[in-house]
This record gives sequence, structure tokens and C-alpha cells, in this order.
Amino acid sequence: MPADMNNKRIYTAAIVIIGDEILSGRTQDKNISQIALWLNIQGIRLHEVRVVADDMDAIQEAVNVLRERHDYLFTTGGIGPTHDDITVDAISAALGVDVVEHPEASAMLRKYYETRGGATEARMRMARVPDGADLIPNKMSGAPGIRFGNIFIMAGVPHITAGMLDALTGTLEGGDPLLSHQVGAWVAESEISELLAKTEQEHDGCQIGSYPFFREGKVGANFVVRTTDAHALNACSAALVAGLEKAGYQAFDGGI
Amino acid sequence: MPADMNNKRIYTAAIVIIGDEILSGRTQDKNISQIALWLNIQGIRLHEVRVVADDMDAIQEAVNVLRERHDYLFTTGGIGPTHDDITVDAISAALGVDVVEHPEASAMLRKYYETRGGATEARMRMARVPDGADLIPNKMSGAPGIRFGNIFIMAGVPHITAGMLDALTGTLEGGDPLLSHQVGAWVAESEISELLAKTEQEHDGCQIGSYPFFREGKVGANFVVRTTDAHALNACSAALVAGLEKAGYQAFDGGI
Repeated sequence: MPADMNNKRIYTAAIVIIGDEILSGRTQDKNISQIALWLNIQGIRLHEVRVVADDMDAIQEAVNVLRERHDYLFTTGGIGPTHDDITVDAISAALGVDVVEHPEASAMLRKYYETRGGATEARMRMARVPDGADLIPNKMSGAPGIRFGNIFIMAGVPHITAGMLDALTGTLEGGDPLLSHQVGAWVAESEISELLAKTEQEHDGCQIGSYPFFREGKVGANFVVRTTDAHALNACSAALVAGLEKAGYQAFDGGI
Repeated sequence: MPADMNNKRIYTAAIVIIGDEILSGRTQDKNISQIALWLNIQGIRLHEVRVVADDMDAIQEAVNVLRERHDYLFTTGGIGPTHDDITVDAISAALGVDVVEHPEASAMLRKYYETRGGATEARMRMARVPDGADLIPNKMSGAPGIRFGNIFIMAGVPHITAGMLDALTGTLEGGDPLLSHQVGAWVAESEISELLAKTEQEHDGCQIGSYPFFREGKVGANFVVRTTDAHALNACSAALVAGLEKAGYQAFDGGI
């Protein structure tokens, strides 16, 4: 079980993004960053992501590896009403359980579609869950998300996923949130890479990421300090600001 | 070796996205879709993607699984001059080869930095490659990408990756490109899911993806037909248009 500098347990998560539309390049994924940011607030760290095709074997492989390895596993995509929506079937197969119709989901879908053209067979596919699963409320459309143990089966459409995350807020056990602070400077990161490494080494439990950019015709970079300890965060950020100024660069506390 | 409906070999690729900044949610990945679209044109299909942390073990695991499983493996990120740039070290370890300074890369970096503050030790880190590797030209900045066997080690910054892809255009063997055609309608996908499944079944080698949206206060969807066969693409798309119109919906050939 991973632990941080203060020997506190670190809670980790993974995501499986399910969708040919991401792998074909047609759709730009937005769920990784939205789920990552939400997890940070819950005190859970996103450790890895896999993007797989709408394919039974590929989904099963990813789900079975990652649900064992992490505290939480999120999947997005493939829970709609059409023939290419096979996430529930693949995850049930991975878990070795039957696919069953969830009575509460059926009732929700029947009610939702009562005034929207009726609960057709295709629409009622969205009431299918792995046997033993619970529902995740979805305020945006009729079809709920699904929870089975540490697996959270979410929509692929980002604003629907957002609604499901909202419903889960505060319900998952996490550890200390990872805090971060940004310091920017108009400097090529390669000019001050030694300062970055030294500052990181001198502040236990802090990590410094370097994110260069090219704007307004000039190179610059933002440096992000990350740690669970608020004191260490302040000390490390202050040391970085001081180091940059000593090296002759104006430091922008908070980032550029 | 996978093959398509005409028994032609399908060439596949995977990507490993290396970067804490993606997993923290700070940065929205843009390389998956840009590499996927470029691969389509080369006749190569992106089959899977993994996003891993700036961590030796995580990078090695992903690289070793995916380089065996696919014709081509691309990595993005972690090849800059700072302490968190460990991609070359991790891939060399995965391959069981030494890290060496590539003489041509050294010369390029010395020349590039001659008028830009000098070739510091940190900057010369970007000349390090797995022993036996070739370079991928980078027109955008001094540091090249790296090719070792079927592995292509690219930048994390999307416009630099784009320049490296440009340098590789036409050099990788691929199969028939996957063709696609889009048909749209103002319809809930759940209304016509049977039509989609039936049309796909009746056209060998065609796949139909369904991508719903909510715009201008109305639900609609685009349906994307994908196949390597131009005749099948036309026949399947035409059947879908006819099926939608028969069901009472206006079909937008080319998508909405």
C-alpha cells in the first residue's frame, strides 16, 4: 500500500476510457482531466489511464488489471443504447457475474422516456448492470451510471460524466489531498534545471514539475510544486522563487 | 497478425503518454487525437493508449507490453532537459541497453544553443539516447526525437510532436487506410439503434459508431461508418441514409 512522506496512506485510482472515437482521433478526450481534477479534491490520485477500443477482450483485460491494482477504477463510455455499447457486458464478463436488469434503473428509464417517445427495447438496454451493482444517479439524462465494488461505470459524454461525479462527491474515502502551487518565469527550463532538481531534493515529499511554453515570442515555464504538506508547499515554493531571483529572473508567484 | 475483411494485413500502433501533468488534470492531452489522425493517413490503426506517471517502473511496464503487441509504439513526453524527464532512461532500461550520447544530436544541440545561452549540461541531456537509436528531426526546437526499432520517442509539447510526425510522414509501412463517412440526423440514437445494428450487419467489414449530441435545444447524432473498402463505405452509408429517411428522419449525408 503506497504511503506519503508522513506515512499516511495514499489512495489511488485508474481510468479506462472505452471508445473507438477516441482511438480514431475523431473525438478529443475530455474525461481524463475532468476526472483527475475531481479525484484530487477527493484526496485520491489518478495513477494511470488506458484507452481501449469497443472490444470485449480489450475492456476485460484493462478492467481486471486496474481494479486489482488501485483503490478505485473509473470507466467512461459504452453505456448507451446502441450496438457498440458493450461496456456492461465486458465488465460483467471480467467480474464473472451475469448481466441483469436493475429494477430501479428500469423504473427510472420508463419514467424518463414516458414523455420522450417510449421505453423501447434499445433504451431499456441502459437498465442492464452487472449482477449486484448499485446505480450512480444521473441528473442530465435518463440512464444512470453503475457502481460495482470499486468500479465506477460512467458515461462517455463529458457533461453527463460531470453530473455522475457530482453525485459521487464526498462519498469515496481518500487521503490528504495533493496540494499544488505554481511559480512562473520567463526562462528556458534548460537554464535552471539544476535549481529545480536541487530545490526538489531539499524539500522532502515535494515534487516539482516543469511546464515550458512559448508565448508572446518568448520562452517561459511554469513550475508546479506538489505535496500533501502545506508547510512544505510554502517552503519549497518560496525557495524556488528565491532561487529564480538569485539567478537573475523575475519569479511570478502563482504562475504566468 | 490481424487482418481485415479482404485478408489484408492490418498494421497497429499504441501510444504511451508519459506525464504527471496529464494525470494531475493540469494539462489536457492533445497528442492522442493528433497522432491517431496522422496514423490513419499512414494506414496504421491506433489500438490502445496508456497514460503513465513520470516513473521508471510504470514507463518500462507499458513500453515492454506494447512494443511486443503492436507494429509501432509511440511515446510522448519526458524528453526535455529537467530532472523529471526520464523517458530515455526508462526506455533504455526496458530495452536492456545503455544510455549513450548520440554524436549527431550533440552537434545539433551545440549548434542550436550557440546563440541561445550555450550548451549547458542540462541541455546536453537531450542528446542522450538508447544505444543504437536513430534520431527523428525536430524543426521546432533543438532537441530531436528518437527512433529505436519500432519505438518512436516524441516530445510532449503538441506542436513539437507535430513537427516530428511530419518528419516521419510516408516512412512507416502501413496497410489500407481506414476510410470513414459520416451521416447525421436530428434523432435520439436510442430511436434507431436497431437500424444501426442491422445496417452494420448487412455490410461486411463496416463498423458504425454512434455519436449523440445535444445542440440548439435538440438531440441529434452523427453516425460514422468505417471500413477499408470504398465501395462498402458508399453502400453502407447510402443504406443508412435510406433507412433514416424511411424511418421519417431527414438524413444529413456528411454529418451535422
